Amino acid sequence: MTDFTRLCIHTMTTKPWSLRETIDGYVRAGVPGITVWRQHVEPVGAEEAGRMLRESELKVVSLCRGGFFPGVTHAKRQLAIEDNKRAIDEAQAIGAPLVVLVCGAVPGMVLGEARKQILDGIAAVLDHAKQAQVKLGIEPLHPMYADSRSAVNTLEQANNMVSALQSPWVGVTVDVYHLWWDPFLQSEIKRAGKTIFSFHVCDWRTPTRDLLNDRGLMGEGCIKIPLIRKWVEEAGFNGPVEVEIFSDEYWATDQVEYVEKIKAAYLKHC
Amino acid sequence: MTDFTRLCIHTMTTKPWSLRETIDGYVRAGVPGITVWRQHVEPVGAEEAGRMLRESELKVVSLCRGGFFPGVTHAKRQLAIEDNKRAIDEAQAIGAPLVVLVCGAVPGMVLGEARKQILDGIAAVLDHAKQAQVKLGIEPLHPMYADSRSAVNTLEQANNMVSALQSPWVGVTVDVYHLWWDPFLQSEIKRAGKTIFSFHVCDWRTPTRDLLNDRGLMGEGCIKIPLIRKWVEEAGFNGPVEVEIFSDEYWATDQVEYVEKIKAAYLKHC
Repeated sequence: MTDFTRLCIHTMTTKPWSLRETIDGYVRAGVPGITVWRQHVEPVGAEEAGRMLRESELKVVSLCRGGFFPGVTHAKRQLAIEDNKRAIDEAQAIGAPLVVLVCGAVPGMVLGEARKQILDGIAAVLDHAKQAQVKLGIEPLHPMYADSRSAVNTLEQANNMVSALQSPWVGVTVDVYHLWWDPFLQSEIKRAGKTIFSFHVCDWRTPTRDLLNDRGLMGEGCIKIPLIRKWVEEAGFNGPVEVEIFSDEYWATDQVEYVEKIKAAYLKHC
Repeated sequence: MTDFTRLCIHTMTTKPWSLRETIDGYVRAGVPGITVWRQHVEPVGAEEAGRMLRESELKVVSLCRGGFFPGVTHAKRQLAIEDNKRAIDEAQAIGAPLVVLVCGAVPGMVLGEARKQILDGIAAVLDHAKQAQVKLGIEPLHPMYADSRSAVNTLEQANNMVSALQSPWVGVTVDVYHLWWDPFLQSEIKRAGKTIFSFHVCDWRTPTRDLLNDRGLMGEGCIKIPLIRKWVEEAGFNGPVEVEIFSDEYWATDQVEYVEKIKAAYLKHC
């Protein structure tokens, strides 16, 4: 079986490449989907990035990332709202139907307060998202990021936000790295159902040598990726399988060969 | 206020010291309580360690650590059970009324299966614990340790085990480092009530530079320690506040000065 139709790779996975190199590398390797990180858009601008992507005929799956809504002052929260509107505009410009939200956290802020500010922040950009026809995916992050990256750490918390916001433009992003340990993962995936907007894969290494940049290629760790994929598909998700790996180790290797390793791991372990 | 009556320090916090140096260091500093790690017992043996501790008049709060019950073969699980019985014997020998359980996990084993094996393992040593008059504290570990250290990652999971085992010899250990992010922490502390056998403190640094050995001194991170302490006390816990810090940074400093820093942080941030 060599069916890559649902394979998508994040530009952060092949971080050393520019957007131009990434597009060319994925097209050459027969990778049909791309999720674009804003830092790869920034050097060329969203209009030019959109032009390059349309020309490539790659399927643009999402833009990473919006979010980071909580702030200690009203002014900071307002800046975050403005930045999320810009992210939505960028997504529209590059043809991405989805912005993934890393919701944010402020060290020392009570997590319940941060979640309240996140909910308020998403609500404040919903009209903008609807006008741009861009969806928003709330991505729960692993609890080891609860200090500074996201106060949303379980799928239940993300689903609760989706329920509270009641908008067809808001759903969840399920990332196996962040959620594999979640005690209620199966039932919350079922609950999320059609509000699962995207699905990210990589693996959890033992030992994990760095909190941020030591993610494993699928098959290198302990995550039951095919099982979780089965759950999201049973819940109704049939979109791309997005490979999102932050790895100092892999970033230091030849990225052309790395993409081939990703393709092999995708076939064997997803 | 300079009330240190409830202060306890783990021997692992001052890891460079031998048990002899630790006892002398804590007595000299006026630290009344000690939790002893097995690696600090091993060089002298449990009988001699017990003699040294009784002579010191330090209050022995617990022995760390038992657990690591899951295994892929019956033989491995049996070895773990035997090792936990030895830990209970050591606790009895050194005068520790409690063994803290880091329950264990096996990379690649489904977490639900690991939890079942943990429950079976604890059940298999319960008679031994009762005979030795040594309690067992199930300590949930942060989800970043779910791959290889513990499949018990929320207080709810630990409480469920206590409920299932129905023994006065089994309770929970609440460690703020592992549980501060837990969405149901307050309600599960209330539920645990008198089955809270011990309480560990340190802090979560931003950034955390290492998954194991970059814990912070109380006050250096984002954990609301006084709030969590209030919850455990409202639930009926009035035992020691145990300082358990793994820190390459602090282990490299003068341990006498470090104990003074711990005392100051205990007064100010716990």
